Amino acid sequence: MVLALQWQEDAQTIRLLDQTLLPVEERYLDVDTVDTLVAAIQSLAVRGAPALGAVGALGVVVAMRQAESEGWGDERLQSEVDRIRLARPTAVNLAWGVDQVRAAMPSGPETVLKMAKAVVEEDEAANRTLSRLGADWILDRTGKQQVRVVTHCNTGALATSAWGTAYGIIHELHDRGALEVVYVDETRPLLQGARLTSWELTRDGIPHLLEVDGAASSTIVRGLVDVAIIGADRITANGDTANKVGSLALALACQRAGIPFVVAAPSSTVDLATAHGDDIAIEERDAAEVLSLGGHPTALPSTPVYNPAFDVTPHDLINAIVTDRGVVEPAARPDPNLLASVAS
Amino acid sequence: MVLALQWQEDAQTIRLLDQTLLPVEERYLDVDTVDTLVAAIQSLAVRGAPALGAVGALGVVVAMRQAESEGWGDERLQSEVDRIRLARPTAVNLAWGVDQVRAAMPSGPETVLKMAKAVVEEDEAANRTLSRLGADWILDRTGKQQVRVVTHCNTGALATSAWGTAYGIIHELHDRGALEVVYVDETRPLLQGARLTSWELTRDGIPHLLEVDGAASSTIVRGLVDVAIIGADRITANGDTANKVGSLALALACQRAGIPFVVAAPSSTVDLATAHGDDIAIEERDAAEVLSLGGHPTALPSTPVYNPAFDVTPHDLINAIVTDRGVVEPAARPDPNLLASVAS
Repeated sequence: MVLALQWQEDAQTIRLLDQTLLPVEERYLDVDTVDTLVAAIQSLAVRGAPALGAVGALGVVVAMRQAESEGWGDERLQSEVDRIRLARPTAVNLAWGVDQVRAAMPSGPETVLKMAKAVVEEDEAANRTLSRLGADWILDRTGKQQVRVVTHCNTGALATSAWGTAYGIIHELHDRGALEVVYVDETRPLLQGARLTSWELTRDGIPHLLEVDGAASSTIVRGLVDVAIIGADRITANGDTANKVGSLALALACQRAGIPFVVAAPSSTVDLATAHGDDIAIEERDAAEVLSLGGHPTALPSTPVYNPAFDVTPHDLINAIVTDRGVVEPAARPDPNLLASVAS
Repeated sequence: MVLALQWQEDAQTIRLLDQTLLPVEERYLDVDTVDTLVAAIQSLAVRGAPALGAVGALGVVVAMRQAESEGWGDERLQSEVDRIRLARPTAVNLAWGVDQVRAAMPSGPETVLKMAKAVVEEDEAANRTLSRLGADWILDRTGKQQVRVVTHCNTGALATSAWGTAYGIIHELHDRGALEVVYVDETRPLLQGARLTSWELTRDGIPHLLEVDGAASSTIVRGLVDVAIIGADRITANGDTANKVGSLALALACQRAGIPFVVAAPSSTVDLATAHGDDIAIEERDAAEVLSLGGHPTALPSTPVYNPAFDVTPHDLINAIVTDRGVVEPAARPDPNLLASVAS
């Protein structure tokens, strides 16, 4: 399994796989200063909500080690920890990761490191649990010995502390000998499917086929897959799910084809404070993401662009939401507070 | 209006807009030899079934003028015309265009030119007729003064002799003051929407927003558009429609949103010999189209790829098929031979 991040015990550093260079180059960054860490977070060398939570927690240890070697006082140290915490202000998991360990700083770096490692381990444990539950549910529902899967974006080890969410279910199915092939949407505009997921699948020896996002509906409706599995950015109380733009197309095609559409996410993704998908603001991102790729223009630079970062799949199109605390079935059992039983 | 091709009366040449350079550069090719024409067709400087038909017919005149100036005998001339006819063996319209005028060659280049111009003019006339019919149908069905449209791929002047098909309806709506905005799918892998359609819309002063293909379902389901309009590669007897991959996603989202999904094509696109969409073979194209863009890799070069060129939208998802011979409504009036009334 690929790892987005690893704690290096001897050097007391975080080793990050630089995701901005994938798949062209596999280069690692050894993070031993706050400056290096903040730069890595801001350049998206490390990304994905659960991975950022882990990096936030481990980053506090890096700051404490740097304080020792450079003789920082506590005021300087606290302000450096704040820099990590706010490196990407909209990434709530980053601040959450810092906050999980910050109170223990007076007990020294060994204690903080132990707590940070627990954050990483708990994320992996949640992913492994939901992957088992998801594989069980899918094999039971489809009644098949081997399934063909379609997925969207990147939900693998690169987006998490380890193992992955939707990707984790795919990995689990593969380990059970129950996976035939994965169709991977390239996931425009940032190509997380092409650049990251297909790279992880290659590394993990899992059979796959890359396709453009527009091909997914036809792949599903023609009967080439048995199940769609995606991750989630946010799941509302009734099961409406925000995820990378393009996810909704898979859900609509699954309904047409009569195959299950499955969402996989740790219970921390559930947001009971939001009642339904209409209440989720759709973030619009920079036109430049659509207008070029690798510096090569795809349209006139002046072209007006609509670039929503994610879409919302209504609960009635979702057959299963798989979390580490259990599986709920929004399409079969609509309930305005369905997710309460699995929220953390 | 942009023109993919124009006959130059003084020089007796075909002027082609080199579509391989769009949108970065707008360069024209003056075609005065068979070699130049064959190279332009093979490089996709000119593309689109109706445009290739027009170029085939006009190409015979180019060959006859070259025969005069270089003193070719009839055998050489006929073999050069065959080279044009077979420049892209799978493009049936190219051979069709040559064959429309070939029998008139003994009557001299003036006669052939007159017939070739008729091929061009009839294509434009068919497009203008279907555009009026389509605009009428859409305004009647939606009951709106102004509509917001989503489209996929390129169906404009660049793909036809002039005016366009689905694009022609959009242009007609704009000319009537009945168009608010067009959402344009970029249309991976070859980006005909980003490179060609958004360029044409800019040139024609038509308001538009470019989006990645994965955004289209959400644009439709969120209520941002009133109608989807696409072209067609082939329409079977019952109305099942093959078009650029990604079209099916729009149809499924329109059904969910309860808005009309409209197919626009000249009557020559109707294939009564094919009963339904399951009988259409899905062409798979080269992996390189998906694995790179402008020479920049999007995934590991060894990644296995599934790259279908088009998909099939079942007739029950199609509210209107608009041709120059009239409009039929497959979703409302299913009939195994529905298209017989508009086939040419």
